[in-house]
Amino acid sequence: MLARRGGSRLNLDELTSQDFSAIAESDPLVILPIGATEEHGSHLPLGTDSFQCEEIVQRLAREFNALVLPPIRYAECRSTRNFPGTISLKSETVQALVTDVLSELARNGISKVIVMSGHAGSGHMAALKLGALRVIEQNADMRVMVLADYDIACDLAGQEFPQDDGHAGQIETSRMLAIRPELVSSERPFGDARPPRHMIVSDPQRYFPSGVMGDSRGASAEKGGRISDYISSRLSDIVAQNFDIPRADGSEERA
Amino acid sequence: MLARRGGSRLNLDELTSQDFSAIAESDPLVILPIGATEEHGSHLPLGTDSFQCEEIVQRLAREFNALVLPPIRYAECRSTRNFPGTISLKSETVQALVTDVLSELARNGISKVIVMSGHAGSGHMAALKLGALRVIEQNADMRVMVLADYDIACDLAGQEFPQDDGHAGQIETSRMLAIRPELVSSERPFGDARPPRHMIVSDPQRYFPSGVMGDSRGASAEKGGRISDYISSRLSDIVAQNFDIPRADGSEERA
Amino acid sequence: MLARRGGSRLNLDELTSQDFSAIAESDPLVILPIGATEEHGSHLPLGTDSFQCEEIVQRLAREFNALVLPPIRYAECRSTRNFPGTISLKSETVQALVTDVLSELARNGISKVIVMSGHAGSGHMAALKLGALRVIEQNADMRVMVLADYDIACDLAGQEFPQDDGHAGQIETSRMLAIRPELVSSERPFGDARPPRHMIVSDPQRYFPSGVMGDSRGASAEKGGRISDYISSRLSDIVAQNFDIPRADGSEERA
Amino acid sequence: MLARRGGSRLNLDELTSQDFSAIAESDPLVILPIGATEEHGSHLPLGTDSFQCEEIVQRLAREFNALVLPPIRYAECRSTRNFPGTISLKSETVQALVTDVLSELARNGISKVIVMSGHAGSGHMAALKLGALRVIEQNADMRVMVLADYDIACDLAGQEFPQDDGHAGQIETSRMLAIRPELVSSERPFGDARPPRHMIVSDPQRYFPSGVMGDSRGASAEKGGRISDYISSRLSDIVAQNFDIPRADGSEERA
Amino acid sequence: MLARRGGSRLNLDELTSQDFSAIAESDPLVILPIGATEEHGSHLPLGTDSFQCEEIVQRLAREFNALVLPPIRYAECRSTRNFPGTISLKSETVQALVTDVLSELARNGISKVIVMSGHAGSGHMAALKLGALRVIEQNADMRVMVLADYDIACDLAGQEFPQDDGHAGQIETSRMLAIRPELVSSERPFGDARPPRHMIVSDPQRYFPSGVMGDSRGASAEKGGRISDYISSRLSDIVAQNFDIPRADGSEERA
Amino acid sequence: MLARRGGSRLNLDELTSQDFSAIAESDPLVILPIGATEEHGSHLPLGTDSFQCEEIVQRLAREFNALVLPPIRYAECRSTRNFPGTISLKSETVQALVTDVLSELARNGISKVIVMSGHAGSGHMAALKLGALRVIEQNADMRVMVLADYDIACDLAGQEFPQDDGHAGQIETSRMLAIRPELVSSERPFGDARPPRHMIVSDPQRYFPSGVMGDSRGASAEKGGRISDYISSRLSDIVAQNFDIPRADGSEERA
Repeated sequence: MLARRGGSRLNLDELTSQDFSAIAESDPLVILPIGATEEHGSHLPLGTDSFQCEEIVQRLAREFNALVLPPIRYAECRSTRNFPGTISLKSETVQALVTDVLSELARNGISKVIVMSGHAGSGHMAALKLGALRVIEQNADMRVMVLADYDIACDLAGQEFPQDDGHAGQIETSRMLAIRPELVSSERPFGDARPPRHMIVSDPQRYFPSGVMGDSRGASAEKGGRISDYISSRLSDIVAQNFDIPRADGSEERA
Repeated sequence: MLARRGGSRLNLDELTSQDFSAIAESDPLVILPIGATEEHGSHLPLGTDSFQCEEIVQRLAREFNALVLPPIRYAECRSTRNFPGTISLKSETVQALVTDVLSELARNGISKVIVMSGHAGSGHMAALKLGALRVIEQNADMRVMVLADYDIACDLAGQEFPQDDGHAGQIETSRMLAIRPELVSSERPFGDARPPRHMIVSDPQRYFPSGVMGDSRGASAEKGGRISDYISSRLSDIVAQNFDIPRADGSEERA
Repeated sequence: MLARRGGSRLNLDELTSQDFSAIAESDPLVILPIGATEEHGSHLPLGTDSFQCEEIVQRLAREFNALVLPPIRYAECRSTRNFPGTISLKSETVQALVTDVLSELARNGISKVIVMSGHAGSGHMAALKLGALRVIEQNADMRVMVLADYDIACDLAGQEFPQDDGHAGQIETSRMLAIRPELVSSERPFGDARPPRHMIVSDPQRYFPSGVMGDSRGASAEKGGRISDYISSRLSDIVAQNFDIPRADGSEERA
Repeated sequence: MLARRGGSRLNLDELTSQDFSAIAESDPLVILPIGATEEHGSHLPLGTDSFQCEEIVQRLAREFNALVLPPIRYAECRSTRNFPGTISLKSETVQALVTDVLSELARNGISKVIVMSGHAGSGHMAALKLGALRVIEQNADMRVMVLADYDIACDLAGQEFPQDDGHAGQIETSRMLAIRPELVSSERPFGDARPPRHMIVSDPQRYFPSGVMGDSRGASAEKGGRISDYISSRLSDIVAQNFDIPRADGSEERA
Repeated sequence: MLARRGGSRLNLDELTSQDFSAIAESDPLVILPIGATEEHGSHLPLGTDSFQCEEIVQRLAREFNALVLPPIRYAECRSTRNFPGTISLKSETVQALVTDVLSELARNGISKVIVMSGHAGSGHMAALKLGALRVIEQNADMRVMVLADYDIACDLAGQEFPQDDGHAGQIETSRMLAIRPELVSSERPFGDARPPRHMIVSDPQRYFPSGVMGDSRGASAEKGGRISDYISSRLSDIVAQNFDIPRADGSEERA
Repeated sequence: MLARRGGSRLNLDELTSQDFSAIAESDPLVILPIGATEEHGSHLPLGTDSFQCEEIVQRLAREFNALVLPPIRYAECRSTRNFPGTISLKSETVQALVTDVLSELARNGISKVIVMSGHAGSGHMAALKLGALRVIEQNADMRVMVLADYDIACDLAGQEFPQDDGHAGQIETSRMLAIRPELVSSERPFGDARPPRHMIVSDPQRYFPSGVMGDSRGASAEKGGRISDYISSRLSDIVAQNFDIPRADGSEERA
């Protein structure tokens, strides 16, 4: 059974109870991908955050022989909450979800967990962290990492990408062109305004009617591939630093 | 854009915000598939409820040109909650999830919704219904159907299948052999006991250590195909009765 | 003091603290009757579920020397919630009530409990079970049975009574004629429709304006007596199977 | 139907939905009796607060042609919470119960309500008042009175009864001797200590191990009768002042 | 560091973590002052309850070498909730606040706590006590006193002050003239009505439009000083009785 | 009365109800200062975040004739939660507090609010923003700014101050030397480690046992004064941009 893990069986819910039980004894890393169903301009699909996150998670899982939990493709979406197609959860629901899933992992003896979010809104991230914290308070031996792949991608803003690139901008458009090009329309919208910083407003969409924060022009699948590589490489190091897990290929460090 | 709907674009999160907005105006049916990550014997994968539910939902969506929301592959799992691999949500979390998603559909002008659950536990179903009820109380024009495909499959117990067929038994094994045979192991466990009716116990797993309620022997992909056909046909009639939606092929009734 | 128990002192709140304490040491069965204040047609009183439940509970208590807690005559009533006279609790309140009462029984060293509901709505039953489950999670030695006497009565539908007999129909009318005839008016309403299955609707009363699901004609006190006997007999066996309690008359099994 | 009201049919749940509906149109007073299941010394039954409250409520209901809701015989009991036989609800549950019942009365068009509590603990009363307040916030036309009959009885402490008479003392013992003498044992305990004022302690029972605050000696049924008369008379005036309801006997004021 | 305590450093948040840690080992009394932002007639400032409470707390802290927590100047204000300037917290928020602060004191090893409230509303006091109770349930060694200085001041009503003196009346006006005369306007309003006892009303302000319950005429700073002395003296005895703490001046009892 | 506002009467709770009412009609800015009681190294007091925040708020209030609410000196403190002296609120409590206070401001007709936090933890800020959002959802005309003065101070890290200056480091030490030098001890601790990024850990204090993130050496009152000036100047512009409020001195822009 364990042999399968070197192969393609990374999705936790494709295992039987007994197979899972055997793997759990080896203290594996388990990853929970959390996406979003959220407006992403006139050119990107509502599931953009999900697709990006899940691609990165699959790479990471292969590298660390990790198990991947069924993805949750909903998030708390604040700035875009009034656009068509956004399905935003309440912050309390996001927290409850993560609390429940992580509690069950703890019951199952899992001690190394990554909650990877495709959506990087600060309220959403805070809910994920608070949920994880509640579980840690009851399970002191558990180590949980909570982060958004988008935040790592943003390292590249100001370098290869425009400084103010953001929601549905050049980075996200490039990544989607690399991963799911058939879901990207031919439009390349541009939006140079945003809701005012620090302000809590009832109509954030009024401040960026395009639904885009940044400039999607100039995006390409090739750039998207480089972004994915960058994120994966950075994540690989972060994970190796924080968890005591060998890489599947036996390497110690990535160049 | 709308043309795509006659084609393969049924997943809501593969649409852009604008495409969704255009489709929403035609008052489409929207379906939320809810699966589970739950022990299913030594032979079926943890995601059995998810896979079965999602297959049925895809059929239904094609028939009624419905939009399919991203599936949630977690449920409240009571009898199996102490087995390895079960990831059970709290009842309150299930309710909150459904409340949030349906509230957002209401905000988006959607008035016809099916919540299709692959897991049929009574506590889980009650949470789904209570969540839907809370949204209906605020949106009196919304019509929501909440049901488990498993409950329809159970019509067949006592007919083609053993009377007491249940969790991970012949029906579920047959369906999985039809849908995802590569995830079914060669074991065919048999369990003739169950937790005592009416009793709330702290150790339900003790009453069916096999994790199976029924007899998986005799299952076949061919039977599984017939079950799916039966469920789809029954569902088609139930949906047509309760919502005023034309079938995609223009037919009035299924034989 | 203990001598009284062979007599008529079955109501827990008629005991002093010390008498209760002495009885509690003998590990008695404790029963919590939960009724409802709910529309029951033009002929039956709002307390129909309470009266039926409490009669059955008194019988059961005599048979097993059980203590009866003060009844709660309120339930979550979903289908009838918009009729005059229904006083429906929120599902969360029902759950909290049961959680609190059972937690206090646990504190008092009680380990055998029956929660007997006169109202059988699935949401209400789910709330009762969830409340009991929360207490069991903290008190693993406690054994709690949660059931509705109505569900046992329904065994008789399709036999002596019409197959589709339901709310305020022939079974309930007969039982009330046997127990509290002075509260039954001379009308015998008939209702052959019901709210659509699986649908969550804001106006369930619209689907059965009579407030009756079934045919109350043909009801009689004599039939009601037989129903009570049947329920008591069945319950007696269920209780004997699930709890290790001698019957008050020393018998091993009922004929 | 309405004619019955001049007679003996005061209990709301003994009415049919239609009878209730007809009466509700006359804008009647509705009373919710709330008792307790709580230690009351070695001589008084656990239901002492319930029995006292319900007797007073029946008198009041007759005087004002009021409808009486099914009693709730549970309260939040703080000082006695560690004694055998006390079944204390959480404060939040008490609040939720009152909120739900009063909300349903509002839905039914009832605008004059008394919540009469047999238990007078300050935390319990606060929960009742907070529940009522939440309903008033949504139903500004509703007038709700929340009070404990015990607080009125306490006017007599320092007059006919000892100044420091309290829980299970001479007043309560006398009232029970008048109402339910068969439930009063022959003991007449005496307790001159109490939990320290202002202190929140984890073991309040340690400060009055007798479970009595006061001196039950000297209690008599005759005194109990006078107390009931006093409470009824005072309540009658309070109700007449605060609600615009004629007395059943047509009198304007009680002597 | 400890030496400072004989001096002026009584405010907990003026200490460093290490200084606090050293003091905490000596098992000091810690006091949490809770005021209010609430209408107090046309002559007293919104912070009247805060100013009065904090003055008393400073005296008490000096006498018992107690540490004073940062004051919370918000309360649940029920009768005055519709007046301009009242900032009323929900009862649940008050409870949560006290629960959190006391839980953290318990984590820090503090076992003697006074929650001193400047606002004496019964709902507010109940919330404070319930919050403290929740913490005591988890920390049985903790001793918490919860009281309102106003309740002690009210001993003087009927003696030096009018029997029915209340909110913003002669006692409060005198105290404010003694403590913060610059915040007291020259008006001396008089209000002889109050919201009806026992009634839960949506418009309590309608019953005392002056916002005053009592007669502020006759107030003086000199009287205010005597009230403060009286409260301090009484509190000193109450604290000495309930906690085992030496007075800073070494005296055993106050005259 | 209004004349006072040009003078020194900026604290809301020093006003009478009527004075507040008159000022409220002029649509003033209202500021809620939120500090913390939190470990700040061996040299800074637990109230460091409160003192810094309140100083900035007073400046801002003078500039914009704003009213200042009574400060709340408690926050959710995550990294420091296990150090002595930290009094951390739960995230839910922080949210409830802000929700309640802002709701009451809305009831009072206030439409321009700043929630200024001295503590900048991301969970704490998320709770403040979520609380504000809940109020905005019910009061669409309200404009609320939520920010931490510390985040503005951090602009200076990497310029005049070390790049990695943080909790209790050179910036905070300098500010405290400028504002409350008597509360700063002579120690100047240095801490170059931090809890690992992205990780949710049960023992964050283990990663920076000094309780300091940065280097407090080199701090001076003179630097602290410059920081305050910088923050005030930046805040002044941010406020002027986001609210339509004239500055008290009539100037249009700060140099």
